[in-house]
Amino acid sequence: MTSGPRTYTLAGRFDMYRAGHLDSPVFAYETWGELNDAQDNAVLIFSGLSPSAHAASSADDPTPGWWEEMIGSGLPVDTNRFFVISVNSLGSCFGSTGPASIDPNTGKRYRLSFPVLTLEDVAEAAHRVVGHLGIECLHTVVGCSMGGMSGLAYCVRHPESVRRFVTISGATRALPYAIAVRSLQREMIRSDSKWNNGNYDPADPPITGQRLARKLGMMTYRSAEEWAQRFGRERSTDHASDDDQFVAEFSIESYLENHGIKFSGAFDANCYLYLSRASDLFDLAEHGGSLEAGFKRLQLDRVLVIGVRTDVLFPLVQQRELAEGMASVCDDTQLVELDCALFFPHHFPTA
Amino acid sequence: MTSGPRTYTLAGRFDMYRAGHLDSPVFAYETWGELNDAQDNAVLIFSGLSPSAHAASSADDPTPGWWEEMIGSGLPVDTNRFFVISVNSLGSCFGSTGPASIDPNTGKRYRLSFPVLTLEDVAEAAHRVVGHLGIECLHTVVGCSMGGMSGLAYCVRHPESVRRFVTISGATRALPYAIAVRSLQREMIRSDSKWNNGNYDPADPPITGQRLARKLGMMTYRSAEEWAQRFGRERSTDHASDDDQFVAEFSIESYLENHGIKFSGAFDANCYLYLSRASDLFDLAEHGGSLEAGFKRLQLDRVLVIGVRTDVLFPLVQQRELAEGMASVCDDTQLVELDCALFFPHHFPTA
Repeated sequence: MTSGPRTYTLAGRFDMYRAGHLDSPVFAYETWGELNDAQDNAVLIFSGLSPSAHAASSADDPTPGWWEEMIGSGLPVDTNRFFVISVNSLGSCFGSTGPASIDPNTGKRYRLSFPVLTLEDVAEAAHRVVGHLGIECLHTVVGCSMGGMSGLAYCVRHPESVRRFVTISGATRALPYAIAVRSLQREMIRSDSKWNNGNYDPADPPITGQRLARKLGMMTYRSAEEWAQRFGRERSTDHASDDDQFVAEFSIESYLENHGIKFSGAFDANCYLYLSRASDLFDLAEHGGSLEAGFKRLQLDRVLVIGVRTDVLFPLVQQRELAEGMASVCDDTQLVELDCALFFPHHFPTA
Repeated sequence: MTSGPRTYTLAGRFDMYRAGHLDSPVFAYETWGELNDAQDNAVLIFSGLSPSAHAASSADDPTPGWWEEMIGSGLPVDTNRFFVISVNSLGSCFGSTGPASIDPNTGKRYRLSFPVLTLEDVAEAAHRVVGHLGIECLHTVVGCSMGGMSGLAYCVRHPESVRRFVTISGATRALPYAIAVRSLQREMIRSDSKWNNGNYDPADPPITGQRLARKLGMMTYRSAEEWAQRFGRERSTDHASDDDQFVAEFSIESYLENHGIKFSGAFDANCYLYLSRASDLFDLAEHGGSLEAGFKRLQLDRVLVIGVRTDVLFPLVQQRELAEGMASVCDDTQLVELDCALFFPHHFPTA
């Protein structure tokens, strides 16, 4: 038997960072391990765009989480030692309030009436959960991909309440190439006639556009060289006939097709659009007027910046920029450049 | 006043490389300069996927061609010295027979009844034009992007009739990343309901899918670093209001949008699908059983391989492979690696 995440419903108004507000939003979260008496062992995890709060299995929900290999007894994020918190991003569709949720003021789904979402809002929602759990200062914030930027938003907005930061394939802000990729992904969904300007039937969503967007995403996770090694020009075994010359013929096409199908419908299209846009909008430089000023607001004791050499969406050049900025305000900053990743931060099972 | 290209209609049957045939196909071409008495100064140009035969202006058609800066009096391809021939690719829609042409046997457009197209067919069609012009042996074959592969197909299928070869951002075959990009571009078009399994009204083509495919193509022409330098996080001046939060906000988005619109409808969708697929299918190793055997079939006196460092579709690693293979059979082989290109071989005005 599995149960869903716990939820915390904020009493009253939640002001959004850019404009507008939400009334009584819900924040879905899960925790693992125990908060110690000193209340100084809490670790907050920010996910990439698409995962739920279910980062790891638990007694309540024994199904594997999206970071099952990382969080647990004796694992890198050791639940014997840490009290681990994972919050479903505000704007997502796995329990936290988002465009697919019912607006309490209208009784209807928000859809495109949801206010502009930023990663500052995602961070603030998580901060409210942390406060709700009675924690004043986090041992560590960990964030992957979009979550790396959400985590950075958390650290710069609440510098007094976090001691350490681990960013994996994050960034100080999105570069044009990442914006172009996400912009095109959004356009693929918006171009699907089923999207219907956001007013699709949840039972009949714009899955064609979502599948295309997913495939484009997949193409940014590995470099062309990795793909050449893995697939070469191998023919797909699915390619049984010449009846349709535009079906998948090469293995690489079947691979993308299978992953594209897996994703279809698993994530609400409007939620995807909002979170994708939020990733474009984030810019540390907004916090103080420049990147330098943004870094100066941080009060971290220790920072770990992890990047992957083959990542084209958050390239190493951005990891180095992040590490240099961190080192300018935190002596204990370490940069780790991985040649490749068995685990791809932008690419979770549910992503 | 401008006139269209000249055409040569083959009398009878043209067998396709993979299977099937065309009856009395038309090949559209243009020429510049004069064939000399020795008939040894002919240069054949193969274009990328989308250009017409109009590579440069002429007395017949003074409008600028897609390679206006390269072909002409005193220019790199010097028309005072060379007799230059450019053939619209077989399968294209600018005068040569393709899926948008009328099948003489049915009186209707070929659409998806057009046989599987390969770059060997594109090369063969050009070879027929060369023969029609009375030329036995070409001074040089020049090919860019897809045309680099078409040119290679020409050299390996008619080794006795070409002396020199210039390949710009070509390849011995497509790698998985390039296949993935093109496969996704094709799927974007096929997913547009207006495509209607190829049976669209030519006056109302699947321009949404074509626009998306064009944008994805644009994203492969420059590296992420180049884009960062050019666009940064500059906001678009088109972004006048917040009415629609998913309109283009960043300059990079406006840039892609403007180029996407420019392309829409300029190229027949079915022709695009066929030529795109042909690019995936080409493999020099089919000619002899291995790349090595394919190279050994060539009888070239001189080869120039040009690649662009920032090209992700035909990366430098492929240019080096091409140059090494060429050098193994032709001592006078030169490789030139450009840091960037003002002129992008995959990206012509009409492309």
